[in-house]
Amino acid sequence: MSVTGPRGFRAAGVAAGLKSSGDPDVALVVNDGPLAVGAAVFTRNRVVGAPVLWSRQVVSDGVVHAVVLNSGGANVATGPQGFADTHRTAEHVADLLDVSAGDVVVCSTGLIGELLPRDLLLDGVSAASRALDPDGGGRAARAIMTTDSVPKTVHVRREGWSVGGMAKGAGMLAPGLATMLCVLTTDAVTDHADADAALRHATRTTLDRVDSDGCMSTSDTVAVLASGASGVQVTRLELQDALTEACATLARALVADAEGASHDIAVTVVGAETEDAAVAVARAVTRSNLVKAAVFGNDPNWGRIIAQVGTVPEDVAAFDPAQLDVSVNGVQVCRAGGRGEPRELVDMAAHRDVHIEVDLHAGDASATVWTNDLTHAYVHENSAYST
Amino acid sequence: MSVTGPRGFRAAGVAAGLKSSGDPDVALVVNDGPLAVGAAVFTRNRVVGAPVLWSRQVVSDGVVHAVVLNSGGANVATGPQGFADTHRTAEHVADLLDVSAGDVVVCSTGLIGELLPRDLLLDGVSAASRALDPDGGGRAARAIMTTDSVPKTVHVRREGWSVGGMAKGAGMLAPGLATMLCVLTTDAVTDHADADAALRHATRTTLDRVDSDGCMSTSDTVAVLASGASGVQVTRLELQDALTEACATLARALVADAEGASHDIAVTVVGAETEDAAVAVARAVTRSNLVKAAVFGNDPNWGRIIAQVGTVPEDVAAFDPAQLDVSVNGVQVCRAGGRGEPRELVDMAAHRDVHIEVDLHAGDASATVWTNDLTHAYVHENSAYST
Repeated sequence: MSVTGPRGFRAAGVAAGLKSSGDPDVALVVNDGPLAVGAAVFTRNRVVGAPVLWSRQVVSDGVVHAVVLNSGGANVATGPQGFADTHRTAEHVADLLDVSAGDVVVCSTGLIGELLPRDLLLDGVSAASRALDPDGGGRAARAIMTTDSVPKTVHVRREGWSVGGMAKGAGMLAPGLATMLCVLTTDAVTDHADADAALRHATRTTLDRVDSDGCMSTSDTVAVLASGASGVQVTRLELQDALTEACATLARALVADAEGASHDIAVTVVGAETEDAAVAVARAVTRSNLVKAAVFGNDPNWGRIIAQVGTVPEDVAAFDPAQLDVSVNGVQVCRAGGRGEPRELVDMAAHRDVHIEVDLHAGDASATVWTNDLTHAYVHENSAYST
Repeated sequence: MSVTGPRGFRAAGVAAGLKSSGDPDVALVVNDGPLAVGAAVFTRNRVVGAPVLWSRQVVSDGVVHAVVLNSGGANVATGPQGFADTHRTAEHVADLLDVSAGDVVVCSTGLIGELLPRDLLLDGVSAASRALDPDGGGRAARAIMTTDSVPKTVHVRREGWSVGGMAKGAGMLAPGLATMLCVLTTDAVTDHADADAALRHATRTTLDRVDSDGCMSTSDTVAVLASGASGVQVTRLELQDALTEACATLARALVADAEGASHDIAVTVVGAETEDAAVAVARAVTRSNLVKAAVFGNDPNWGRIIAQVGTVPEDVAAFDPAQLDVSVNGVQVCRAGGRGEPRELVDMAAHRDVHIEVDLHAGDASATVWTNDLTHAYVHENSAYST
């Protein structure tokens, strides 16, 4: 169902020749209204692509009529020419749909530092506009894939309205979102302020806590469009709840498809003084190549885990190293900062999901961050990607 | 020559049976004076082993007579029993040498979370004391190896005095030093204040800028002992200069031997507003798995490099993304935030050393951080290490 699950949207995905494989590479999502509410969050990287520079301005007035996306090139570090290409793409969409270019969000993903082939791209946009379909969400989701092995879509149903979504990303997932493009749609009646606040809350605890390899991308964009076509007025909290559910589903799908991973790892920190402290400790663990390599080896190496916990400064997270407990898949292998149950009790080989829980014994707050193990396949994919 | 290069020192390395391989695993370095000046720096990890807890106290009065080191077990996360073992080890050395236990530094390296076999260790210490030799530095360097493929030693000669040293470490190298044990010796005449200041300066720009995989260890210790046996009084600056040279040599040796690496990477950041800013940007690049995997693939992927530069917050390092230059092995592949010379001009396959230079165009400060590429062998070693 993807982005065309909710009413009031059409979408398309076509092959424009940007990818040498000939796979679909241009997607278009159009909001047919009656509302044209839009909001988005972007990477916090200071080096961003032309599409992010452009789209930040587009969403600032809260009106978005369409999102055009391409794979096969990120249009990052491409200078004024790259920005002109993004601008031209938005204008072309605007002409085809008879809307303002300033209401068209542009997203690009792929290699950094290469100009997009403008003519191919614009022809692809034309073809996409001709192919727009109220059932086109699945094809759009395919057209934004890069190293993804499967398209990622979601449809969260509520009483009389729903939230749909599609996302791409399979590596370079990190705070500040990831090399992740995500478009969410809803037919609920809402306004920009509510949509923006609900989206920020939804991403903060889901997509922003996926940390596949600690590398923050230059292109991450998560946009939400509201058509109001259901006629159902929703509260900010209702919208936030549905968006959070949609983002959580997409986040898990991104982790499950991360480049070359053999385990999905959830690191939950409990007993923290604050949620921020819990997130900081969880991120320290998910960032450790040694922990991630140990998980690949099916080794519940709690020594490496507490060594990472110890790298978090005292002003960021309070804890007493002598009180740390660590469980792996439910077995408390580290108790009070020392050896707990025998590590042999932990069965990791039979499960793709690995759950690491760290108890700081310093408060009541908790948080979970998701990552993957570090595998030979990860090294292979990321050493061969651009050559 | 190692730690017995300078006059006034004896050392030994013996096999005590802590390593299942039967390789040497206990080392002893003794300062025969006339001075017994000592200083040390330790990991900044909050989770530290019993040896670090003990040795921090030992060096606080500036008097050190001996350093005892073992491989085959880190004695970390071992609770009161682990601390008692460290204490007992120091007492045993003190009895054998007729010095105070409070003047004996203890270092341990190996797996976390396991108690050391105390009897084997103490017997090994006895054997090491019997084997003490003014030429024993090489054997001591061998006994502290873990996954190291070669012992690392250094001897820096000055007019009438010298600095010797040995180090172990081959992975888990990161700020806060690394899983690195390093003992430096000098026969210069100096005092605790000068030795301490000189050591801190020397490590700050060398060993502390080696960042093999971003993982800060629980056991890192760099100690310096001064015997005064040369009779040559040195200034703080002279000592600092020789210690810096010794530490730089050992740091490069550690990087060159890092687990499973095929390239040594030096990331130099120039044009920074401050040295701290340069270090922060360089560390961001050396921490990137994507950059490290690209180097393994002999791919001068400047897009991944500037994406990492962009993750450094504005209050940490000033720069304009549109002014960034990046050179790889002397070829400026990124100019003014965009494409520069063709990446095909960069020959990485033929060289183990890779030099990445980032120019921020924001000032006159610079710094270099060293790391390695991310390889299949790294994943293999670190997924199989403790199982």
